[in-house]
Amino acid sequence: MKGRIVTAKNSGFCFGVKRAIDIAENTVNSAGKNSGRKRSTKRLIYSLGPLIHNPQEVKRLEKKGIKVVENPSVLKNATLILRTHGIPQGLKEKLRFQNLTLVDATCPFVKKAQDIVQKLALGNEKIIIVGERKHPEVKALVSYGGDRCFVVEKDSDLRDIDFSGSVAIVSQTTQSPENFSRFVKIIKELNPKAKTFDTICRATFDRQTSARKLSKRADAMVIVGGKNSGNTKRLAQICSEFTKTYYVETAKELKSAWFKGKKIVGISAGASTPGWIVREVKKKLEGFLKEPPR
Amino acid sequence: MKGRIVTAKNSGFCFGVKRAIDIAENTVNSAGKNSGRKRSTKRLIYSLGPLIHNPQEVKRLEKKGIKVVENPSVLKNATLILRTHGIPQGLKEKLRFQNLTLVDATCPFVKKAQDIVQKLALGNEKIIIVGERKHPEVKALVSYGGDRCFVVEKDSDLRDIDFSGSVAIVSQTTQSPENFSRFVKIIKELNPKAKTFDTICRATFDRQTSARKLSKRADAMVIVGGKNSGNTKRLAQICSEFTKTYYVETAKELKSAWFKGKKIVGISAGASTPGWIVREVKKKLEGFLKEPPR
Repeated sequence: MKGRIVTAKNSGFCFGVKRAIDIAENTVNSAGKNSGRKRSTKRLIYSLGPLIHNPQEVKRLEKKGIKVVENPSVLKNATLILRTHGIPQGLKEKLRFQNLTLVDATCPFVKKAQDIVQKLALGNEKIIIVGERKHPEVKALVSYGGDRCFVVEKDSDLRDIDFSGSVAIVSQTTQSPENFSRFVKIIKELNPKAKTFDTICRATFDRQTSARKLSKRADAMVIVGGKNSGNTKRLAQICSEFTKTYYVETAKELKSAWFKGKKIVGISAGASTPGWIVREVKKKLEGFLKEPPR
Repeated sequence: MKGRIVTAKNSGFCFGVKRAIDIAENTVNSAGKNSGRKRSTKRLIYSLGPLIHNPQEVKRLEKKGIKVVENPSVLKNATLILRTHGIPQGLKEKLRFQNLTLVDATCPFVKKAQDIVQKLALGNEKIIIVGERKHPEVKALVSYGGDRCFVVEKDSDLRDIDFSGSVAIVSQTTQSPENFSRFVKIIKELNPKAKTFDTICRATFDRQTSARKLSKRADAMVIVGGKNSGNTKRLAQICSEFTKTYYVETAKELKSAWFKGKKIVGISAGASTPGWIVREVKKKLEGFLKEPPR
């Protein structure tokens, strides 16, 4: 019997990523007609850091004219797209006074989390953010609460925090609910009055639930997405608890040996993984599963 | 002796307005090359309400492809520029979930005032906003403080406000410092602990100072700007205290009879008045002042 491929129910682009790519493409495509501008005066369009955490899609956008820039202070007379993960508050304020056209592609759910952190900080709460310290979303979140924020990524991070007083717990939008709940439980033991703000986005929850369900019956899972993508990383972690899991960015990384004798191979993709990469992975996998074992 | 024209030192476009027009033109002109889009798929670019309060400049931008829309809820797959005066917080949040590319042209100084109001509201302050109740900037400012905000436009507005408790006073960015100080003084008599946040922008202050100075020595003043422009309106008010003042939107409105026998005619223009209109006014005025009296 040949193996078959099953794709997880909720997989690939989420609302915020789809929106950001629409915004980026629209920014490149808008107008132009009758603009009468010469090639030399064509305005450059930049994204502040990668727009989304998918190198291949970022490369595709770069070919369309959206250049990734890390240091925006040197830009002048340019259009700058703000990434899905948001940017630090102080930087945003600074950019407003630069000669730039800002196009905000921050995910609206990330924006909501930022608003909550800002509100909590102004209310003098101690804010615990469950998330990856070095992830741009978390860096931006922290900027809205300043020194009232404490990031918790692993258990040892809890040691350095004084949990007395008024404490509120929020989450990076792409954390797994299990991880968040676990930290909430520990913190509530230290301070039973700690308030919880579940800022995990629905898309993250849905992708994780579908992937977990599928991984329980699959003989192997392929998780497709950027290696720098937090939410994709977590999909792979979750699935690896239940079955052999391979985390790839593109079809090129797939090896036929991985799937020898596998009956059901599950596929899921992160919120920032474009459909065209998932289709390429699927096609290559189909080839492997049809092949008679060599 | 023929009359001569003196232009006020600080006059016309301010930073925020210049920035907004740059942003609007850049949005229309960006990219286009190699976009390969057909005419029918050309994206429309809108501004939410007039980008600035100058009908002639708004019309010029409209010809370039920026359409003014009052109700953005019907828009889909469009680029929407947010006006210099800012927009209400709730509306901004709603627009983020619509299929739109948002380009924020809110004046950075207005944004700062919004941030102050938001901070004060979260700190449970009672917020007194000195400004025009129906002006879009004030409407947006109020949205950041909700029912903690009270707008004071005229003395009678003070009657309905309970000034007990923690009170903070902020200003529409284009108010005259005199008017703001006057209200601050009255409110501080009612509540000496009231805090003051002078959110009047420097450009407003500079334009008013220069116009006042000039009006004291001019035989007549011509103030050029949109009839819907708050800051231009206030320039005209200030000058009319010292000399005969004419408030025009365009050169067409000027009448030669106004300037018969005048030796010094002063000109100033609001922060939203483009240079091309001021130049037209000046040219027509020069004609009047050269003419021998009929």
